[in-house]
Formats: sequence, structure tokens, C-alpha cells
Amino acid sequence: MREVAVLGVGMIPFGKFLNRSLRDLGREACWLAIKDAGVSPKHIEAGYMGNALGAVLQGHTGVGQTVFAEAGLHGIPILNIENACASGSSAFREAWMAIAGGHYDLVIATGVEKTYTEQGGVLDIGEAEPELRLGLSLPGFFALMANRYMAEHGATAEQIAKVSVKNHKHSVLNPYSQYRKAVTLEEVMASPMVADPLTVLQCCPRADGAAAVILGSADYARRLTTSPVLVSAAVLMSGMGDNPSDIIHFRMNEIAAQRAYERAGIGPEDIDVVELHDCFTIAELHHYETLGFCSRGEGVKLLEDGVTQLGGRLPVNVSGGLLSRGHPLGATGIAQIVEIVWQLRGQAGDRQVEGARVGLTHCMGGIKGQDAQATTIHIIRR
Amino acid sequence: MREVAVLGVGMIPFGKFLNRSLRDLGREACWLAIKDAGVSPKHIEAGYMGNALGAVLQGHTGVGQTVFAEAGLHGIPILNIENACASGSSAFREAWMAIAGGHYDLVIATGVEKTYTEQGGVLDIGEAEPELRLGLSLPGFFALMANRYMAEHGATAEQIAKVSVKNHKHSVLNPYSQYRKAVTLEEVMASPMVADPLTVLQCCPRADGAAAVILGSADYARRLTTSPVLVSAAVLMSGMGDNPSDIIHFRMNEIAAQRAYERAGIGPEDIDVVELHDCFTIAELHHYETLGFCSRGEGVKLLEDGVTQLGGRLPVNVSGGLLSRGHPLGATGIAQIVEIVWQLRGQAGDRQVEGARVGLTHCMGGIKGQDAQATTIHIIRR
Repeated sequence: MREVAVLGVGMIPFGKFLNRSLRDLGREACWLAIKDAGVSPKHIEAGYMGNALGAVLQGHTGVGQTVFAEAGLHGIPILNIENACASGSSAFREAWMAIAGGHYDLVIATGVEKTYTEQGGVLDIGEAEPELRLGLSLPGFFALMANRYMAEHGATAEQIAKVSVKNHKHSVLNPYSQYRKAVTLEEVMASPMVADPLTVLQCCPRADGAAAVILGSADYARRLTTSPVLVSAAVLMSGMGDNPSDIIHFRMNEIAAQRAYERAGIGPEDIDVVELHDCFTIAELHHYETLGFCSRGEGVKLLEDGVTQLGGRLPVNVSGGLLSRGHPLGATGIAQIVEIVWQLRGQAGDRQVEGARVGLTHCMGGIKGQDAQATTIHIIRR
Repeated sequence: MREVAVLGVGMIPFGKFLNRSLRDLGREACWLAIKDAGVSPKHIEAGYMGNALGAVLQGHTGVGQTVFAEAGLHGIPILNIENACASGSSAFREAWMAIAGGHYDLVIATGVEKTYTEQGGVLDIGEAEPELRLGLSLPGFFALMANRYMAEHGATAEQIAKVSVKNHKHSVLNPYSQYRKAVTLEEVMASPMVADPLTVLQCCPRADGAAAVILGSADYARRLTTSPVLVSAAVLMSGMGDNPSDIIHFRMNEIAAQRAYERAGIGPEDIDVVELHDCFTIAELHHYETLGFCSRGEGVKLLEDGVTQLGGRLPVNVSGGLLSRGHPLGATGIAQIVEIVWQLRGQAGDRQVEGARVGLTHCMGGIKGQDAQATTIHIIRR
């Protein structure tokens, strides 16, 4: 298996762009990444597009063909990948697969999504299940998880809410975040209730956004730079765990994390900076545990000890996370990688994690108990 | 690059199944392929799903996770791939990439689609373009192509219509085809006009369908059989050609075909049996030319000389093609591969092409002049 490098990254600040198309947002991200890599578009051999809801919300299939043509990339293989909230990170992994497998030397992986629409409605991922029709939407599921977590581990609603305080504090330092306003614990707790105990400031907001990454073989990268950013592991896992009734543990996350650490030849203790899927506050606490950063039920302690805040031993979501940046499904997984690459290069400005050499991104889509889950974990190093 | 084999294939007869779900249709195809391969589902390492319109027509994202879970495949990476009408064939190619690149030894590629729906409407692939809103739907585009072809090459509407006669004649022999009725040239010409000169019997019908393929490394395959079916080339190309105003020539088809022949180390003269994308009669004539089976403008002669009918030197669409089988977008590309594998194994019953050793499948999505085109060409041999 060949070593793979990230040669260039690009992202637009996430926000609400009712008058910009997927085509328009995606092109800008592609151009930023191509410029950042310092490569010619003519040398890009394939394009991977992560987009989850373009067909449903914008009536737009073939998003990759549209965006890459708009970016000036013609006559290459293009693939559109949908893996719910992990669409972008799955596209990145497919790009990695192609280069690692020796098929190409230089490719682009882009994620784009517009979730702000004229119409409203509940975000529906997977088949229209009886559970959803009966009210078990995504906030409802994670609220169940939070209640179970509190019952099993003695955590309080306030402790869970502190994830939002931390990530919103980080977001102030990130010009790419949609919301850049610090919030107090009191504000989080007093914000409107969505699904008890999750208030609205504990649920990731919508966003329109796009992000892109240029990947190449390490040999190709070393012709351009003496210190390439390398992909140590890129893992995708789907399916339920062995105990579907264990509602507070995404078993597939654990399995994916174990595989990623094995492939990278490191352990969770070697990670310097993390972007993980904080779609809801409880999710971040949970992911501390499945990713191996602490034992089961110890997530709250990790948070309250300040380990995961900027300046701590293991800063998590210094970008502000999904909770502040917003969650344009197809773009989120690529945005996480862009942030980590900036961190590893020392280009993260005021939110720079000093001396970061190994980063981890974690993105997941679908709900446990249904079968639409896709978990991706990528380990990237300098 | 490792050699890749097709270990097993499965397909359901295409038809109209208003009361069966994507989950249900897809599972059946998966099981048929798994049984045909004689492998344990536990040994399948990844799943690739081709589906184009599930999100739009059935409100169903994450089709692969749903179908593969239903088929008993848990805890594996699953990827949903949308490339318009070439979604299934693109999923097959991604599966090939993964094995050829050394990532896996055994995977499944499945295509499923339900195009019969309660609501009607024009099939819209790509971004909602001004051209479509002004009436340039897919039949409209191919009608323009037919008119231009007649003007340039002196072909007649009757000559183009003969493709439908040939393919419907083949369909009578194929129990997997949705329509199995021979039609006369007079019937084709007299059927209702859709877009002049294309009558309804010259336009592929809707269909619900599913098909699946088990792929493995050649080494893995040789443990199961002494004469594996091997993939000699798997090519995907997107984008417009260098002359978008040349409406009767899909330049990307030519480029993809050239690459496929190069990789397989053979030429068009070495192909024994072909399944190609006859979405409209004119398309088949055109593809004879871009795939290198004859020179430009010679497609009609190839057809009228009987070269491409069962019993001819190069039988094309002995399955009945899209024109008879119907076109469930995500399933079509996999169905073509299933048919070719049956032909190479000598399992095609009354429509068997005697002594077939090298087959080619060609599938494409999107319209030239727009940028949503995806062309796949796979060469498979015994």
C-alpha cells in the first residue's frame, strides 16, 4: 500500500447562502485547494464528491460532475458519494484508497452541501423508518442517549451542556465558523429545549458550505515539499454493533478507531488534536470514550478537567465543531480534514494547537439501531 | 495492480414492483450473487451500492447500508455511489479499484432502483438546467442526435428504428427482461411519437430492478474455480469532449473505450459479446462507432448486415438491452455485467453467444453538452 499525502486544502467560511448554488460553493472550495496545493488542474486525475442531500433539497444529482466541470476539471473519472453525514469523509477515504492502491498520483476530494432551504422539515437520513414517523428524529435519538448516559454514569444535564460552552468558545477564534459567539453555561441551559435534555445550543445548526482536499502519493508530494502532511490511516465502517440495545455506545466507532490506530501504528495517547462529530453535545462526550481517549463514563471528567479545550493536553474541536460551524453534511468531513491539516502545518492562527504533529478526524452518519450508520476515522500526521 | 475476478452474479427479473422496497429488491439480488459465488457473507469485506434516485423517488438515502444490512452483511465499509444512469457500473468499478489496489480480497457491488412511482414527471439527471426547463429532456436530446445523424450520414428513421426490432427480438429469449415481445419495424414506426424521430418503442422503458456481483482477487477466485471470470479493464470517464457542439459524438466514450482496450491489451476486434447503453435506438448506433466496432457513420451498416444480432459476428444486447429490459438506473450497469458473466460461463440459455470468451459492458449517464456525463466501460473475459 502506497503512502498518501494531503497536498492542498481549501474551505469557504460556512454560512447561509440562499443565492449561491452547490456548483458555485463547490467550485470556490476546489479552487482554494488547487491553489493551496500549487498544482495544475490538468494534473488532477480523478474527482470524488461528497454530497448527501443535493438530490432531495436542490433537485441536483451528479453534483460532482457539475462542480468539477465548473472548477475546470474535464475528462477525468468523477464519483458522487453519499454516506449521510459522513459523505465528505467517505469521499476523502475513496480518494485515499485510489492513491494508496496505485491507481492515481493526484486526485481531489470535495464536499459540498446546502441545508438552508426555503422549505422546512425534519432531516431524514436513511429509509423513512416507522421510528422517524413516530417522532424519533435525530435530536430525539441523541436525547435518549443523553438520558441513558446520565442514568448510567451519574452525569448531569449541565455537564453535558458544557461541551457547547467549550466549542463555542473555540469558534470565536475560527473565521470559517458560521457562529462565532461564546456562550455561557446558563445561556446553553436556558436556550429553547429541542429534546430533553438537549437545548438548541446543544444541537448543531444547519449550514451551507464547501471544502476540498488535494491528495497525492507521498512521492508526488515530496517533489513539492520537504515536509508533506501524510495520511496514516483512513477507515470506514458501517452496520450496527453486536448489541443494538446498547443505546449509548456506537460500537462501530470503537472498531473503526481500533483499526485506525492499528494501521497508523499508534494509540489514542499519540493524538495531538481532534476534530470529531459533535452533532449534539452528548455525542462529543460519547466519542471521547469510543475513540479511546478515556474509559466509559469518563467523558465528563475529561471535559471538566480541561483536557479537550484549547491549551489542554488533547484539544477537541478547536474549530468550534459542528456545534458552531454548522453541519453541511457532505462538506463536514472534508472541513474537519482541512482544519487538521491547517493545525499540522501551524496555519491555524489564534486557535493553533502548539506543536501538533498527529491529528484525528471522526465523522459519522446515521443512527445506531438503524442500519444507515457510516463511521469514518482518519489519522493525519506531519 | 492485482488481477480481479467476478466470483458470483445475481439478478432479479426486472419489472414493476410497486409493493416491493429498494431494501427488498436489493437483498434478493445480493443473496443470489452470494449463493452463486459460493462464499460466506462473513467473508465479504466491503459493499458498494449503485443507486441514482432513491433519495428523490423513495426518500431513501443510505440505500447501501439498508440493503446490505438486510442481506446480513454487518460491520463492513459501505459506500453509496450515484453517477446518474452509470451508478451501478460506477459502483462495480469502485469495487474493482479496491481489490486491484490490494485493499480487499472479497467485496460486493449491487445496483438497485425503483423508477415506477405513483407520481409521474420527467426524469431529471444533473442540475435543473435551463435546457431541461425549456423542454430538452433526455428523449429530446437523443432526438436531436438522431436528426443530426440522419443529416450527416444519410441514415433514415427506419434504419435507426431497426435497433429496437433487433433488441426486442433478443428479449424474447431473456427471462430477466421486463418486456419479452418481438416487434416489427412497422410496429416500432407506428408506435406513439415521443420526440421526432424517436417513437416510444425506441425509448427505454422504466423498470424496477436489482442486480449484484461478488468480486474477488484472482488468487481468491482460483481457490474456488479453475476457470475464473476476470476483469481485464474497468474504466470511468466524466466531462465533456473537446467539441461540445458535436452533438452526435460522445467523445468521452471514445476516450474511455481506448483506455479500456489499452488496459486489456486487446482491440475492439477481440470482443465477442457486448451489452451497451441503448437508452434510445440512436444511442446504440452511435455507441457502435465510439466503441470502435465500426467507423463514424457506419453504425447502420453494422446493424443491417446482421453483425450485432444473435448469431452475428458481434452480438450486441442479446439481453434485449435497456430497450426491452427497462432501465432502473442504479441496477442497469450491474445487470449488464451479470449478463456478460452468464455469457462467458455459457449459462445464457437460449440467447447464448457460442464460444464467447471476451465481453464488454458500456453504460453512461448524463447528457453531452451538460457536464453530468459519466461513461463506464468494463471488459470481462474467461
